[in-house]
Amino acid sequence: MAFQTVKGMRDFLPKEAIFRDEVFEKIKRVFEKFGFSPAITPSLEYYEVFANKYAIGEENLKNIYDFEDKSKRRLALRFDQTVPLARLVACNPQLPKPFKRYEISRVWRYEEIKRGRYREFWQCDVDIIGSKSMMADAEVIACGLEAVKELGFENVLMRINNRKLLTAIIKFIDASDKEKTVLRIIDKLDKIGKNGVEKELVAAGLDDEQIKNVFKIISLKGHEEVFENICFLEKYEAGKEGIKELKDLIEWLKVFEIKNFLIDLSLARGLDYYTSTIFELSGEDKNIGSIAGGGRYDKMIGKFSGNQDIPAVGIALGVERILELMKDRANKNTVTQIFVVSVNEKNRKDAVEAANILRKKGINTEVDLMDRKLSKQIEYANKINVPFVLIVGDEEIKIGKYKLKDMSNGIERAATLDEIARLVLPRS
Amino acid sequence: MAFQTVKGMRDFLPKEAIFRDEVFEKIKRVFEKFGFSPAITPSLEYYEVFANKYAIGEENLKNIYDFEDKSKRRLALRFDQTVPLARLVACNPQLPKPFKRYEISRVWRYEEIKRGRYREFWQCDVDIIGSKSMMADAEVIACGLEAVKELGFENVLMRINNRKLLTAIIKFIDASDKEKTVLRIIDKLDKIGKNGVEKELVAAGLDDEQIKNVFKIISLKGHEEVFENICFLEKYEAGKEGIKELKDLIEWLKVFEIKNFLIDLSLARGLDYYTSTIFELSGEDKNIGSIAGGGRYDKMIGKFSGNQDIPAVGIALGVERILELMKDRANKNTVTQIFVVSVNEKNRKDAVEAANILRKKGINTEVDLMDRKLSKQIEYANKINVPFVLIVGDEEIKIGKYKLKDMSNGIERAATLDEIARLVLPRS
Repeated sequence: MAFQTVKGMRDFLPKEAIFRDEVFEKIKRVFEKFGFSPAITPSLEYYEVFANKYAIGEENLKNIYDFEDKSKRRLALRFDQTVPLARLVACNPQLPKPFKRYEISRVWRYEEIKRGRYREFWQCDVDIIGSKSMMADAEVIACGLEAVKELGFENVLMRINNRKLLTAIIKFIDASDKEKTVLRIIDKLDKIGKNGVEKELVAAGLDDEQIKNVFKIISLKGHEEVFENICFLEKYEAGKEGIKELKDLIEWLKVFEIKNFLIDLSLARGLDYYTSTIFELSGEDKNIGSIAGGGRYDKMIGKFSGNQDIPAVGIALGVERILELMKDRANKNTVTQIFVVSVNEKNRKDAVEAANILRKKGINTEVDLMDRKLSKQIEYANKINVPFVLIVGDEEIKIGKYKLKDMSNGIERAATLDEIARLVLPRS
Repeated sequence: MAFQTVKGMRDFLPKEAIFRDEVFEKIKRVFEKFGFSPAITPSLEYYEVFANKYAIGEENLKNIYDFEDKSKRRLALRFDQTVPLARLVACNPQLPKPFKRYEISRVWRYEEIKRGRYREFWQCDVDIIGSKSMMADAEVIACGLEAVKELGFENVLMRINNRKLLTAIIKFIDASDKEKTVLRIIDKLDKIGKNGVEKELVAAGLDDEQIKNVFKIISLKGHEEVFENICFLEKYEAGKEGIKELKDLIEWLKVFEIKNFLIDLSLARGLDYYTSTIFELSGEDKNIGSIAGGGRYDKMIGKFSGNQDIPAVGIALGVERILELMKDRANKNTVTQIFVVSVNEKNRKDAVEAANILRKKGINTEVDLMDRKLSKQIEYANKINVPFVLIVGDEEIKIGKYKLKDMSNGIERAATLDEIARLVLPRS
């Protein structure tokens, strides 16, 4: 027998697992500061929850990790956390609104594996259900920005747009019959460049004049001055609404002290379900790429519940990308703070007794479990990078003071267990 | 469209999710105090990882949640966290030993649903890989006991036994050819009672004399005095080893300050893979039942790696059972500490500005996102059980002092945001 992990899935050894845990804890803290509470949805949903036109969109169907269970039910490992949230809210109409929840968990996609893309990965989402106000859009943006800032990403830029403006642009060039197709092509701008988009628009049947106009508008980027150049879109209902919403959003972003945003009319976002505000966060450094994104999806939940529209807006952190960018900062091999070394065979019990006391004081403590000699114990402590080693021998027991060695600099000092617990603070 | 959750799977709304999160955090803290570090394994494994005779045993195969993926691979949602750990250790021979890891995550079983049994549930495991010493067995027992104590379970009893003693008993009654069958029947004692076990032993082909002897031995319970009654088992190799290991274990349990244990020779534990120490934790109150269990499995990892035996011992908390027993303690509907109420339309921005400051101070803060009137905002704050409400109106802005209302007793006081942040401590 020799086994490996399933294609596209990963083991995380302690060094990576400790680091991921720290990052998720930081994100969670920020989400909670903004008043989002956790909710948990199952890993599996009925296939139809995802595979319907109000959810993830046709071109994503092939990437659902679906299967038939032993009773021939068609099930899907969850594709994202947004669609299950919509299902949860539809199942629980009694929830007070706004319903502000976060979820940090695993999702699965049946995609080709390439660098940085896995079939099992983690998402970190916050969503606000029930508020139509652009104040909610501003709040999820502020929350997402604060989370990446907490992780050390200061030089980031939130590009914002509104789907309604894209609808108006497509109306303006008289291509409304191809709206979804054109949207999807524009969405590829970052990936395939202007030439690529131009080619695909030609293939989609747009003429030179239409394409010229598309580029003229979607190349607009900036702050409020952008509105001067798109006032002609106000003659369309969608354009009027889109401009009003975007202006509202910007006012609220200022109240939330957000300065690093940019209106970018080329921003389209891939998923079908967005209806209004859309946004994407990237590093100012081109290498960083997109690290978060989201938007408003006012139609999805209503489709699930069969009732009237329930407004919703959310942001998802691209946490696998973020972790990849931060990976050099993973530097702990163990959560243990003190490794208690026993000098001789007889001191093994003394070592456990010292560990009992340190653990009661909240210090993460390990003792030798391998009946090893002193030198081998130190070797192990070195290998797992323990910050402190405590030496317990007959002499130490007699005087009630133990030798504490700081493994980062080799400095030793003698101290009582009480003093040691104060020197090595408990991990919270 | 109307959707529900997949059979046997649950949504957790904030009240339950917050509570589960708090319980898992407490368990994690204890695991880390004992020097266990996290490791993460995938949700999916190749079916064969579980379905082999060294892993979960034949009678559990039907309960594996397995399926064929789109490329006809036979995969399984993980049945437990122990087998994936064995696979992980076999895949990573470079890991320093002992390898002490914990994992708190989801597992899946394709079982009939009944009260308290789900197809997706959580497990909390600690395991020590690489140590043969009974000190390791004592440490995982101490760690498990400390975790349930931390959750408020003080009156608990750890029943301990050793598989080798059971082997010796079965040798003594001359039924070694039926060892697995007899073990599995004995394991049912708590469920089907003495009469039930007797019937099944008859059906398995044991005669009256054999059955009488089995019951005479497995009814032994107690502390060290038990050894006096089983010294005749020492004539078998397994009996000799089992007694030595159990005596060793008890010595170490004392060093770890564990008093509430009981040798119980009827304890068998269902899974095939145990080779030595086994233990099970239950409440002294009969209604509580089993809340944790585990043991030593020295053969499994070696079978995965194809190398020599790698000793291993671990404990799993029955955390769904524990959560069920604790469910009355779930009492928070939100993580939000302060809801900032805006007195009039104009104060909405002031409310966000106050929230910006409180969030910077680490206070979980919500503002109204629904353009609601004062009374409706208070109504919402009541509905989600926010501990504090902060009132922001023109008067408050002018004097720089805000009204803070303690929702538990209705007491109001005026204070600056600095003072308020000190009154309402940040959630850590």
